[in-house]
Amino acid sequence: MSVSLPGGMTVEQLEEIYQFAIDLGKKAGQKLLDGMNSRIAGRGALHTADANTSNNLAFTEKDNAVDIVTQVDEDVERFIHTAIERKYPTHKFIGEETYAKLAARDYLITPDHPTWCVDPLDGTVNYTHLFPMFCVSIAFLLEGRPVIGVINAPMLNQTFSSCIGRGAWLNETTPLPLIRNPSIPPMPANAPGKCVFSCEWGKDRRDTPEGNMHKKIDTFVNMAAERGSRGGLGGMVHGVRSLGSATLDLAYTAMGSLDIWWEGGCWEWDVAAGVAILLEAGGLMTTANPPEDPETAPIEDVRLGSRLYLAIRPAGPSATETGRQSQERAVREVWKRVKHLNYARPGA
Amino acid sequence: MSVSLPGGMTVEQLEEIYQFAIDLGKKAGQKLLDGMNSRIAGRGALHTADANTSNNLAFTEKDNAVDIVTQVDEDVERFIHTAIERKYPTHKFIGEETYAKLAARDYLITPDHPTWCVDPLDGTVNYTHLFPMFCVSIAFLLEGRPVIGVINAPMLNQTFSSCIGRGAWLNETTPLPLIRNPSIPPMPANAPGKCVFSCEWGKDRRDTPEGNMHKKIDTFVNMAAERGSRGGLGGMVHGVRSLGSATLDLAYTAMGSLDIWWEGGCWEWDVAAGVAILLEAGGLMTTANPPEDPETAPIEDVRLGSRLYLAIRPAGPSATETGRQSQERAVREVWKRVKHLNYARPGA
Repeated sequence: MSVSLPGGMTVEQLEEIYQFAIDLGKKAGQKLLDGMNSRIAGRGALHTADANTSNNLAFTEKDNAVDIVTQVDEDVERFIHTAIERKYPTHKFIGEETYAKLAARDYLITPDHPTWCVDPLDGTVNYTHLFPMFCVSIAFLLEGRPVIGVINAPMLNQTFSSCIGRGAWLNETTPLPLIRNPSIPPMPANAPGKCVFSCEWGKDRRDTPEGNMHKKIDTFVNMAAERGSRGGLGGMVHGVRSLGSATLDLAYTAMGSLDIWWEGGCWEWDVAAGVAILLEAGGLMTTANPPEDPETAPIEDVRLGSRLYLAIRPAGPSATETGRQSQERAVREVWKRVKHLNYARPGA
Repeated sequence: MSVSLPGGMTVEQLEEIYQFAIDLGKKAGQKLLDGMNSRIAGRGALHTADANTSNNLAFTEKDNAVDIVTQVDEDVERFIHTAIERKYPTHKFIGEETYAKLAARDYLITPDHPTWCVDPLDGTVNYTHLFPMFCVSIAFLLEGRPVIGVINAPMLNQTFSSCIGRGAWLNETTPLPLIRNPSIPPMPANAPGKCVFSCEWGKDRRDTPEGNMHKKIDTFVNMAAERGSRGGLGGMVHGVRSLGSATLDLAYTAMGSLDIWWEGGCWEWDVAAGVAILLEAGGLMTTANPPEDPETAPIEDVRLGSRLYLAIRPAGPSATETGRQSQERAVREVWKRVKHLNYARPGA
């Protein structure tokens, strides 16, 4: 039986690609782990202190001190790219490292080709410091839409994966979101109250009121402050979490462990696999920047190249709302509390 | 051969206690995991949405919505307490849950008895949301000083442990800090630049300039902002991380994955095991609140009951400094950038 899918692909063809992607994610994750273990064993003196002129694990600095890219990063992307080229020579490939070498930062994903969108190493700063929150992220897109996602965080022994219509999974055995029996909990009645709010400080650290750092801070404080404060904006979230990996932020939102993720500044390869997993798990994803009237404006689907993301965890029905209604309520409550971020890009 | 230790204990006696503590940490961690898996399987409807009237995993709210304590928390503390009472009936026991039921919040650790200081579940909010950053924390103190520490984060498969003079370890096999070959890196030359800075938003969310939330925020922004900004205070740290577990913040600082942890408001059971592990790994720990002259004041040892903590990761020598000198330089650079926090307690 062949059901037709976007791009005229069959279920069987997609299943083969899914298994290939999971296997690729595992192998790439092992390479990240090997690189880490080499450093622990003293082979490769990558560290942020003073040893930046060493051997195969030496690093070069990109935009500023925050933006480190390691040789491992490039090696793992080449490994993934080569494997895809061999297996699927007609597919298009967009990876962070190859992309970063282009002069322009155009949005290159088009609906006309089956496309892979890959971040070989998300959470690079964590990786250089050996903090476990790093991962490889592999997405497969049909007609511009992520339909397969694989995220492997090898130091955490966690692989998140999804294929459209096949569900989202932790380590291929546990369905996401984790809490689903007897039903997936709705968003809290007073969301963002009782929610765990996930956000990142990012690399834009300019100390100006109109810069993204201060807009993010204002937003974080609105979300965290006690109820009734800040002219009614105080959201009293349960907790504020910053992991240093946009990809894992999304994976944990799909898992239901983080309730709300709000972010600007990351790129399609950071989020493509996470979008696939989150949507397949039943999450909602839209834009970080609120429309003119956050109370009534339509909640549009996320644009992958927008660099502005708001994700709400999967939610089930309550006595008074559908799951989707409780998610939309949460989106509007977040939009009321957040500042507009400025992350321009050409063509998106 | 018996070397004498604080409290007149022999190395052999301490070794036996260490193995007992590691075993206890593993069993307690398994109980946390069992509780989590029960919820995933649909037995026990603990969730922050609306299902707070359920069976054995129901929760009650403490100070406010942020402060959830689960039945698992109390059960695991009872399990640990009972095991210690049976094995070491003369030892004193201080646990978060038993302590929390007392009216006063005095500092109860005294140098006259071998004492266990235990948090059955650190990262309670994470646990209720099934976010992996939770753990059990078990410390053993002689003469008021943590000499054994065991931290087990069961969903991460990570156990951190130490015994005075025996080193600090990840999963009993990998010595901490992770990067030590050929030598432990010194703190970066321009610390807090290039450092990963770990901090928590905490539960005090009052929206007043003199409240702890705004003092924390000002500090976070000083640490994060670009160099040269904020009247010279901009620290341009590599990353800002908030995990929601003071205990794991400390464990990852001992691991060398986080460079600086600055926190006010947690309690001795949150940090006692982490202090043992951090110090045994070669880290430095002192107070969060800077002295009058941060440039020259002596850097005093941390007071366990102070609720004000600053930890610096283990550091090795450079061409121009000892490891300790680079740590002390980092302490002073942090002190210049942080605000005084207000966390009073009786008797500390």
